[in-house]
Amino acid sequence: MIDPLLPFLHPRGVAVVGASTSPEKLGYGVARNLVQSGFAGAIHFVSQKAGELFGFPLYCGLSEVPDPVDLAVLVIPASAVPQALRDCGARGIHAAIVVSAGFREAGPAGEALERQCVEIAKAHGIRLLGPNCIGTIDTHFPLDTSFLQPPMPPQGAIAFISHSGAFCAAVVDWSRRQGFGFSQIISLGNQADVNETDVLPLVARDDHTRVVALYMEGVSDGVEFVRAATAVSRMKPVVALKVGRSEAGQRAAASHTAALAASDTAFDAAFAKAGVFRATSTEQMFDWARALESCPLPGGDSVAILTDAGGPGVIAADALESLGLKLAGLSAATRAKLADRLPAAASVVNPVDMLASASPQDYAHCLQALLEDASVDAALVIVPPPPMFTAEDVADALIPLIQTSPKPVVIALLGSELTDRAFAHFNQARVPTYPFPERAISALGILARRARSLGAVTAEPPRPASVPRAILSGGTVSQLLGAYGIQTVPLVLAHSPVEAVTAAEQQGFPVVLKIASPNIVHKSDFNGVVLNLGDSAQVASAYTHLIGEIEAKLPSAAIEGVWVQHQVLGGQEVIVGVARDANFGPLVMFGSGGVEAEGLGDVAFSLAPLDPSEADDLIRRTWAGRRLDGFRNLPPVDRPAVRDALMGLSWLARDHPELREIEINPLRVLAQGAFALDVRISPALFP
Amino acid sequence: MIDPLLPFLHPRGVAVVGASTSPEKLGYGVARNLVQSGFAGAIHFVSQKAGELFGFPLYCGLSEVPDPVDLAVLVIPASAVPQALRDCGARGIHAAIVVSAGFREAGPAGEALERQCVEIAKAHGIRLLGPNCIGTIDTHFPLDTSFLQPPMPPQGAIAFISHSGAFCAAVVDWSRRQGFGFSQIISLGNQADVNETDVLPLVARDDHTRVVALYMEGVSDGVEFVRAATAVSRMKPVVALKVGRSEAGQRAAASHTAALAASDTAFDAAFAKAGVFRATSTEQMFDWARALESCPLPGGDSVAILTDAGGPGVIAADALESLGLKLAGLSAATRAKLADRLPAAASVVNPVDMLASASPQDYAHCLQALLEDASVDAALVIVPPPPMFTAEDVADALIPLIQTSPKPVVIALLGSELTDRAFAHFNQARVPTYPFPERAISALGILARRARSLGAVTAEPPRPASVPRAILSGGTVSQLLGAYGIQTVPLVLAHSPVEAVTAAEQQGFPVVLKIASPNIVHKSDFNGVVLNLGDSAQVASAYTHLIGEIEAKLPSAAIEGVWVQHQVLGGQEVIVGVARDANFGPLVMFGSGGVEAEGLGDVAFSLAPLDPSEADDLIRRTWAGRRLDGFRNLPPVDRPAVRDALMGLSWLARDHPELREIEINPLRVLAQGAFALDVRISPALFP
Repeated sequence: MIDPLLPFLHPRGVAVVGASTSPEKLGYGVARNLVQSGFAGAIHFVSQKAGELFGFPLYCGLSEVPDPVDLAVLVIPASAVPQALRDCGARGIHAAIVVSAGFREAGPAGEALERQCVEIAKAHGIRLLGPNCIGTIDTHFPLDTSFLQPPMPPQGAIAFISHSGAFCAAVVDWSRRQGFGFSQIISLGNQADVNETDVLPLVARDDHTRVVALYMEGVSDGVEFVRAATAVSRMKPVVALKVGRSEAGQRAAASHTAALAASDTAFDAAFAKAGVFRATSTEQMFDWARALESCPLPGGDSVAILTDAGGPGVIAADALESLGLKLAGLSAATRAKLADRLPAAASVVNPVDMLASASPQDYAHCLQALLEDASVDAALVIVPPPPMFTAEDVADALIPLIQTSPKPVVIALLGSELTDRAFAHFNQARVPTYPFPERAISALGILARRARSLGAVTAEPPRPASVPRAILSGGTVSQLLGAYGIQTVPLVLAHSPVEAVTAAEQQGFPVVLKIASPNIVHKSDFNGVVLNLGDSAQVASAYTHLIGEIEAKLPSAAIEGVWVQHQVLGGQEVIVGVARDANFGPLVMFGSGGVEAEGLGDVAFSLAPLDPSEADDLIRRTWAGRRLDGFRNLPPVDRPAVRDALMGLSWLARDHPELREIEINPLRVLAQGAFALDVRISPALFP
Repeated sequence: MIDPLLPFLHPRGVAVVGASTSPEKLGYGVARNLVQSGFAGAIHFVSQKAGELFGFPLYCGLSEVPDPVDLAVLVIPASAVPQALRDCGARGIHAAIVVSAGFREAGPAGEALERQCVEIAKAHGIRLLGPNCIGTIDTHFPLDTSFLQPPMPPQGAIAFISHSGAFCAAVVDWSRRQGFGFSQIISLGNQADVNETDVLPLVARDDHTRVVALYMEGVSDGVEFVRAATAVSRMKPVVALKVGRSEAGQRAAASHTAALAASDTAFDAAFAKAGVFRATSTEQMFDWARALESCPLPGGDSVAILTDAGGPGVIAADALESLGLKLAGLSAATRAKLADRLPAAASVVNPVDMLASASPQDYAHCLQALLEDASVDAALVIVPPPPMFTAEDVADALIPLIQTSPKPVVIALLGSELTDRAFAHFNQARVPTYPFPERAISALGILARRARSLGAVTAEPPRPASVPRAILSGGTVSQLLGAYGIQTVPLVLAHSPVEAVTAAEQQGFPVVLKIASPNIVHKSDFNGVVLNLGDSAQVASAYTHLIGEIEAKLPSAAIEGVWVQHQVLGGQEVIVGVARDANFGPLVMFGSGGVEAEGLGDVAFSLAPLDPSEADDLIRRTWAGRRLDGFRNLPPVDRPAVRDALMGLSWLARDHPELREIEINPLRVLAQGAFALDVRISPALFP
């Protein structure tokens, strides 16, 4: 079956509805680009007046357009779009790009018009791209349905999907001097129908696409996006720039896209789950994409740096460490090969500094020695304007080596006018160059991450046999948690000092008393917890004191009594929990427990469900998790028990979407086992 | 008196020793650049063979060179430099640039040769720049003593001082397309004599210099650098890129510059003290310098963003928040002015999105409205390639407004080919443009920091009257700390359970016991501390238990007895201390106390001595400090007492350079007062 979205990129025939002979009209630009793109299919123009444009006849209606035609581009006033869509349906066209603006982004009337268009499209089996978009480009097919200023974007291997048309236009123009090109470009506009998740697999399937780059302002369906992106990223690398990181940015994005932005933390977790690399700037997104589209993946994290100047080598070493890469330790044999070739004052330890006298042959000789060293996984070559040679001679000496190496090599090509020709040679050979060492190292960093993430399991983890789906009704919180492998310590509600003492004797000393009141969420804010009660007398007196204190401090609080719990001593405390994102669903939280968790911000999130390696990773991302293995006088505790609790919790959240939030604070982790000491579930369905 | 370094930039006559007629020789390049630079003083060439070069005679020795001559540029083999320096002395030349390599950077023989050169220079009263440098450039004077490929670097207002010659060459070539220029450039090379601290005031005094940019791989004399940089930064902004941030980078820098790198944390503290802005990349250093050289300073942190496309506006809003800036809240009047002009679908809240139809006049009208709003301190205008107009028309409409505004305005000019002419127009008008919104916002961020730092006291703080200089000899640690305003709780050494009980009764219960052993630094690692002992029986039994435990666990430890101390209850614990950097001197440390300080990394450093605002800033930079004002059930405590302790400690460290390290862990901070409970001083001079 042919993908119904394929005509947006590979149509057999295109009708431009609203084609214009006035060069200042967008309908002229679309017609011009379609013709100039070299599109080999049938080109049809529809206008209000008959005539001719670029040698093609202007038809007065879609019904007049001859075969073949399977894509319509509508460049007409918004109010005319509903009828044009009906015309498409009548003509048997099932793909329409609506360039026109004046829909949802223009207020309530536009929103109604947009809804009407979607209904018409659905009724006629038409997929609709836009409205308020700048269309699609395929540089290889070729096809250009946009009105962007010619020439076509540079040809290449990066597919680019964008929520913003203006961003597309800016990126395309900027890219012309950057040394990379595009396979396909899709501008999504208002996404009345077709969204980022629909087109992601479409562009990824294209043979000319080696990397997918996404500019996102939100997400249409988080769960579907993660599913689609996971499948795509296993096949081809996906990089994303998602804006609206900050509160200010989210407000701006919301006003701009008229869509509720998902929490940015959830995006981080979703991208991680799906194996999508999240860039923090436009420049970084394409720096990464260029490396991913042209370099082999490294076998490890050890990088060799080759330079003819010390300073840039130091800059590179700095950048490397901050990304978790490391300087390769060179073998004695390699150092001997380098020393043989280079002046005595050169540095033959990594970074290898050949000194300013380095010739193109020196560059090639040394790079070869480095690439032959088994301890080197990847290399950065730094090429400042060489004082005694030309940079293009250096490029020409290096290119054959780089092209035949199974290890990735990137270039920091410094300068501009003196390195222009070298830049062209490297580009021609598809060797990625960067104007600064930091950016080149960042590119090597993404290659290492790609190598690791391909090795990791990124699929939806299978449900472990130990975690059956548990039913809610009729049980207690303890039973529910227990069904998912999370141990609790029983809480007994006492309504009097005598009941408290009885409960304490049943649970075993020492015990802890906690005020039971629906009005007090953070018990420690009101001294609502008394620890370390060693005998009946202490329990009785603590009961009275606790009730008295709360009544004095919070006279309005409804007090149900006091919880009595055996106090688990020793070990370490952490917090685990679940929060539910409107777009992506349940996020599992892990971090420092106790009162300081919030102040420190020592928490991390992952998208549920978790497999063991994801759970371990979630633990390691926090100080609370790193110290589980012991630190100073903190004893090592049962990290696997925390991992199991996180996995169980993730399945619990997955199985029970009606639970908005779960917080276990603290989870006390002992040498053997981990115990949920205080659990909040909302809505509070259970006794 | 004329600065003896001035001839390096403004000589009356220059002699190039080693001038060559062979175009492949550096001595040819230096001669060519000097002539082509338009240098108006006397030009003299000295070579081994008589002849002519660029119309000037070649003399066979410095003694033949006629007046005036006050600068020599030596481009000769290293071995010939000592004699050439003697010749300079004989000829009365007191400034020499040694371009030649083959000195310290080339091994022990070169190092000896370099020392010899310095001695000769000293003996003849010659200041020496280099060796192994690429000389000096002044684009306005003009002067070019380098061998860099012509043409001269673009003229401008940024003075650039570099430890690396290759980095200079790369930056100069890169700068040609960036829209900024240089007033002066100095390459320092090996710094056998003249160093960064010497030339910093020199270039800052130049009338054409509005900003100083520093590329640093280390520092010659940290204390002198801070003094000089503080003085300069009060006059003109200073930005610095200091490499060797990471361990790998420091090793690389050390092998490259053959200098011991100071700790990078100390550099951070030193730059902060001196009002120097530390950039993290080359691009950022010059992004900042361009804004600082051409924009007025903002009166606050509120930024207006004007765009014709939503996406880039969101990116800008994200960047803004991460830098501590904020979106200006626009007045109703401003919103009305914008709404009057713009289509209904436009966003008239900040970021202001005019939509893609915005004309050059719309841009100007809206920017004017924003700049007139009292709540706006600075503005970013985003100019993507406009679909219906040209970017240069937008530039021309904006420039007059920006040039006459007392508020800073920067431009994010997206694209490349479609915005080339606009780029040229903005540059011509000295309006800084950036290719991405993030970088433009970063530029506004540095302007806001500059405005703040000019307001702050950056001078060496005067010694407070409350902190007299205390003498060490004869006192105790408690007396010493007390003299600097830091309260301690007495520690009494007990050698038996009986002595411990007596001490406890004298100090008052509860008490804490701590093992006294020179072999145990981190007492808590070995359970060497027992808290909360409420009566004599508990003290006696804890004494015996403690000694027994340590003897069992660490049989090799020498045990001196047990310290008995009254236990101060309540409040919060922090750590304060002093570490001494080899270059910059004493650093004051503040952070989370107790066992987790190290694991969390919640510590910050400042260079001593501290004034009250520096001490407050040091406190606020950590979570340990922020929570002093209270958090959840943590009570607010006496932050001013911590500030006083930090200031006192900073003066103590300043007064007593023989103390390498002081650590007070914990300092217990109560509602009133702060108490040093455990103090380590090394070397341990005191009882």
